[in-house]
Amino acid sequence: MATLIAPAKHSPNEDAEALRRAMEGWGADEKAIIAILGHRNSYQRQKIRNAYEKLYQEDLIKRLESKLSGHFERAVYRLMLEPTDRDAVLANVAIRNIKTDYNVVVEFACVSSPEELLILRRAYHNRYKRSMEEDVAANTTGHLRQLLVGLVSSFRYDGDEINARLAETEADILHDALKDKKENREEVIRILTTRSKAQRVATFNRYRDVHGTSITKKWLDEASNEFHKALHTAISCIDDYKKYFEKLLRNAILKRVGEDEDAVTRVVVTRAERDLKEIKDLYYKRNRVFTEQDVSKELYGNYKKFILTLLGKEN
Amino acid sequence: MATLIAPAKHSPNEDAEALRRAMEGWGADEKAIIAILGHRNSYQRQKIRNAYEKLYQEDLIKRLESKLSGHFERAVYRLMLEPTDRDAVLANVAIRNIKTDYNVVVEFACVSSPEELLILRRAYHNRYKRSMEEDVAANTTGHLRQLLVGLVSSFRYDGDEINARLAETEADILHDALKDKKENREEVIRILTTRSKAQRVATFNRYRDVHGTSITKKWLDEASNEFHKALHTAISCIDDYKKYFEKLLRNAILKRVGEDEDAVTRVVVTRAERDLKEIKDLYYKRNRVFTEQDVSKELYGNYKKFILTLLGKEN
Repeated sequence: MATLIAPAKHSPNEDAEALRRAMEGWGADEKAIIAILGHRNSYQRQKIRNAYEKLYQEDLIKRLESKLSGHFERAVYRLMLEPTDRDAVLANVAIRNIKTDYNVVVEFACVSSPEELLILRRAYHNRYKRSMEEDVAANTTGHLRQLLVGLVSSFRYDGDEINARLAETEADILHDALKDKKENREEVIRILTTRSKAQRVATFNRYRDVHGTSITKKWLDEASNEFHKALHTAISCIDDYKKYFEKLLRNAILKRVGEDEDAVTRVVVTRAERDLKEIKDLYYKRNRVFTEQDVSKELYGNYKKFILTLLGKEN
Repeated sequence: MATLIAPAKHSPNEDAEALRRAMEGWGADEKAIIAILGHRNSYQRQKIRNAYEKLYQEDLIKRLESKLSGHFERAVYRLMLEPTDRDAVLANVAIRNIKTDYNVVVEFACVSSPEELLILRRAYHNRYKRSMEEDVAANTTGHLRQLLVGLVSSFRYDGDEINARLAETEADILHDALKDKKENREEVIRILTTRSKAQRVATFNRYRDVHGTSITKKWLDEASNEFHKALHTAISCIDDYKKYFEKLLRNAILKRVGEDEDAVTRVVVTRAERDLKEIKDLYYKRNRVFTEQDVSKELYGNYKKFILTLLGKEN
């Protein structure tokens, strides 16, 4: 369920005019901007952007960028993009910084359904005139390349059929993979990049049954290099991506393990109109603290207010 | 241009009835079957199949299979399938025999446009409840796996933009690749599996300018193992797939270099409603003999008659 609260009706022209007023003269009325853009769904925001362009012969996004700054500006910019185009932008940013952000690439590839990933790849073509796998491959080498290119290139079968015997043999392969020989890596890449979601989940369940611990936990404890970390992210996203986002959000709000506001923005903006409610529920269940409490304590200024609004706080 | 000659109008019911008559009792009237099915386009054939099912509560394809035999039966079966479904079947046959037929997998991946390849991958999902890349990966290892999986998984950018400097550096990489070190292979795989068609063609042109010979010729002379041969097929299909089909057809009709009737059937059936005319023109230009002459000399029986009909021979 979404957390973003949007009115059933709104006037794109009135919103555009109010935004114009909020950005006239020196500085900007951030409170007014948050009150409008933080309470419109993606369809409504595109309508406002169009109305603004018509009224003022100016791109609303460009105006916002010139008037706002810091994390707040970046979050507003990301929110304002049409969702598929936004995913392409976020994926591209991660690919350009792949040495640190390879996990974000894994996240996009493994959270998306096969059809969603295709839509993202098409949007990437449109914006960058190159393919996603092309840019990933040009910026990586070795097994990490093989894994990432395989994940972003996959068009998995999306049905429920599973092969139980295959799950058994491939659970063993994943178990051996922590020994990290070359052949093991190749086989792990094959399983994670090509098997259907249902088949992979069956394999992870089999792993849990045999080894008494989840494969994500096992890998997390032993992950020692980029390749292992990327695998861990892939397995977490496939196994239960809401749980993955919950952990990521918590780490990012508390700025743990290299995460920061960009990750907060990414999770909140990309999930606010989809399943952020369930992610927040998991957050509370796991940490016994509301997401909003952590945000209030750890983030600052207009950025904090904007994130709280997207999390569903009523004005 | 197509070679298959179909009437502007036909009656699916009358065709179904005529086919029924041709398959009643012992044996079959192959001449009548060829006269009908060899002269209907794919849309008309599906109409006939539907009409037959309605009239006789029986699948026309199954009836044909039970009544015909050998290469003729296989060719009729392949022709009768809906074209996308047929490609999925042909790809699956090649994947199951990948040790000898890896080139067919390369062919499907490299001749298809990005959107056509997606359609094929969807058809494969529908028929086999697995993904193409999944089956390719499960049946191969090492660099051949990397190359084949990369080729079938790609969703290339389809625009005309090229980067000339990139073409220069990557032509050098391809040149070094014949030295066949591990790193070279990884880079060749990257270039061939991810770059757009326009970019790859620019790279091949650059290669020709610098080295005075086409990369396909160079590779053909030096290809010494499966990986090199698969690369050669990929480059040939990208560079000029009609030329590729012309050579394949000639080798297959003359049963050279391991090719056989299956390849004749594949080329003729899959191209008869697309561009077999141009392929035949190239055939004559190159060999100074008409495709039909070679077919008449080298093939036999009803299979020969059927192939000649698909090649455009009037009854």
